[in-house]
Amino acid sequence: MTIADRVERVRTRLAGTGTVAPEAMLVSDLSNIRWLTGFTGSNGWVLFSHDRLTLITDGRYGRQAARQLADAGVEGDVLVGATAAATLEHIAACCRHFGNVAFEAAHVTFAQHAQYVGALKSTLVPVTGVVESERRTKDDSEIEKMAEACRVADQALADVVGIAGVAVGQTEAQVRDRLEISMRELGASGPSYETIVATGPINAALPHHRPTATRIEAGQTVIIDVGALVDGYHSDMTRTYFMGEPTPLQRELYEVVLAAQRAGVAAVAAGMSTKELDGVCRDIISAAGYGEWFTHGTGHGVGLLIHEEPFVNRASDAILQVGDVVTVEPGVYHEGFGGIRIEDLVVVTSDGCRVLTNSPKDSPCLPSQPTI
Amino acid sequence: MTIADRVERVRTRLAGTGTVAPEAMLVSDLSNIRWLTGFTGSNGWVLFSHDRLTLITDGRYGRQAARQLADAGVEGDVLVGATAAATLEHIAACCRHFGNVAFEAAHVTFAQHAQYVGALKSTLVPVTGVVESERRTKDDSEIEKMAEACRVADQALADVVGIAGVAVGQTEAQVRDRLEISMRELGASGPSYETIVATGPINAALPHHRPTATRIEAGQTVIIDVGALVDGYHSDMTRTYFMGEPTPLQRELYEVVLAAQRAGVAAVAAGMSTKELDGVCRDIISAAGYGEWFTHGTGHGVGLLIHEEPFVNRASDAILQVGDVVTVEPGVYHEGFGGIRIEDLVVVTSDGCRVLTNSPKDSPCLPSQPTI
Repeated sequence: MTIADRVERVRTRLAGTGTVAPEAMLVSDLSNIRWLTGFTGSNGWVLFSHDRLTLITDGRYGRQAARQLADAGVEGDVLVGATAAATLEHIAACCRHFGNVAFEAAHVTFAQHAQYVGALKSTLVPVTGVVESERRTKDDSEIEKMAEACRVADQALADVVGIAGVAVGQTEAQVRDRLEISMRELGASGPSYETIVATGPINAALPHHRPTATRIEAGQTVIIDVGALVDGYHSDMTRTYFMGEPTPLQRELYEVVLAAQRAGVAAVAAGMSTKELDGVCRDIISAAGYGEWFTHGTGHGVGLLIHEEPFVNRASDAILQVGDVVTVEPGVYHEGFGGIRIEDLVVVTSDGCRVLTNSPKDSPCLPSQPTI
Repeated sequence: MTIADRVERVRTRLAGTGTVAPEAMLVSDLSNIRWLTGFTGSNGWVLFSHDRLTLITDGRYGRQAARQLADAGVEGDVLVGATAAATLEHIAACCRHFGNVAFEAAHVTFAQHAQYVGALKSTLVPVTGVVESERRTKDDSEIEKMAEACRVADQALADVVGIAGVAVGQTEAQVRDRLEISMRELGASGPSYETIVATGPINAALPHHRPTATRIEAGQTVIIDVGALVDGYHSDMTRTYFMGEPTPLQRELYEVVLAAQRAGVAAVAAGMSTKELDGVCRDIISAAGYGEWFTHGTGHGVGLLIHEEPFVNRASDAILQVGDVVTVEPGVYHEGFGGIRIEDLVVVTSDGCRVLTNSPKDSPCLPSQPTI
């Protein structure tokens, strides 16, 4: 599948939207625009109908847009507006041919909608998920980029652990810096998100802790949540280490979380509801008596965004499909204890799933003495 | 001024909004929430009235939110919802006491607004810029963070140029990597944005080029647009180098852009319109005959976001105020020629401005021979 094929898939989906299909659609979400056309600028709109496509952007991106559309094999015009008012006029002029135009209700703000209503003669039809529903299914080229992003993070983590970079006396921020520099050297364009390094009874109890000058101490857990960005695509993985021999409670909880995580990965299948997948992990942690310590959902989709459809939690009602790429990441957190999380990124296949992250999960003990 | 004082400033501004001031306001933009409360999580809402403030978030951030509000001296409650539906219920319950509640029309999506209308009994009042109008005026602690972010970028650029890291034979991506690693080592939490390194007749003609494997060649210009992120605050700076002796056209254009940029910085003053500031730079480039090559605005505000109010371009109608932090960054671009841009970050003061970026602009020639 080429990028140009994506436009056709979205046209087909739009044609099946609502009782009267919109004649055209205005795409304003930049990740959707990138996926549809290859355009990577930070400002743009795409208007497409059954036989035309126009990308509107500002003066910083005119040449770039024309080149990226051509490279992607997407047939379409590029219009450049020097000011926000001029881009709005271009959008209005393009919409003039259509009685009704769909817009992305989950991305267009209340204020933008009011602007469009003032400037456009077409009837504006709110739609949600038209592009996202196609975008969540990753094609082979996207899966290969994400697999490469996972390999980079795997290798960076192995390298940093290998040089005793996760060690008693190191700060959370030092570990983060080593990981992010290593991912860059291995070919990432950057971290996939702010790398999380969280240790100790307070910090590791925060699932989304931001690394600080807190030093790793013997006897504590260290949660490392690290991903790479490769050609716009994200990876996502978490491992938890003990500094020295774990306490009985640390070991018990690690085994509970690992069992939950493995059961989740083993359960992933096309046709399964995401709520059910969340339940597979949650039931194991709850049965062990720690349900209250599992304070977040089991996972989320990953792609051009680090968090995207489908979400995997108690309230989600999506059905897993072949080509979905999702995390499976149960964890337990308790102030005074700290935390443990284990996370893999998997792609749903016709016979289960392929795990894209491959860092070991079985040997989480690192030395309790400072080694560097 | 403390963070807690910001809530009072915003309360006062809200009280002056519209003919009937809203009784409360729901803040959903995360940068606004961070500025108001110190909370740095990736999911949250703040509802405040004249005497109460509540932060609503999900299970990942409950403890963090309570700690960050306390650290900031902000009095308020934290409510945690395990699911999106539960957070919406919390928002609805908090709004129940108020007949009308303002919402951020420039941040709330059309779909979210429809959700709020369904769940909330209060009348929803669209407002724009209530928090941003206060947030654009940086206090001393914010300016110090931005000055530090500028120092980090200045030092990183000096270091990389000093080790002949910007050299014939190096790729754009290699230069970017060196700069970003150096900024990390100097204490940045990351780059302020995707560092731009653009060279040659094609790439440097794109104002927002993304670094590639293109190698720097003798006789070309190299545009480097680099900033650091320090404690959530951004810096922004651009310098352009010649690889070897410039051609007459390169030298002419550099001098035109430098004259425009210096005139812009010299003109910055409280009370001046941003359109007028844009004109100061644009007129010099146009008078030299290259107005068509200056394809973007002169600048933008910088703070917790890399692009924020006030914008400085032909269409902007803001008036500069003491405490505004803006870029002054004229440039010229032409496919076949390449490009030149020079950019400083300045803070508006009572007697002009203070320039926060200090990398030299006078000696842009680097060796035309590979040195490393």
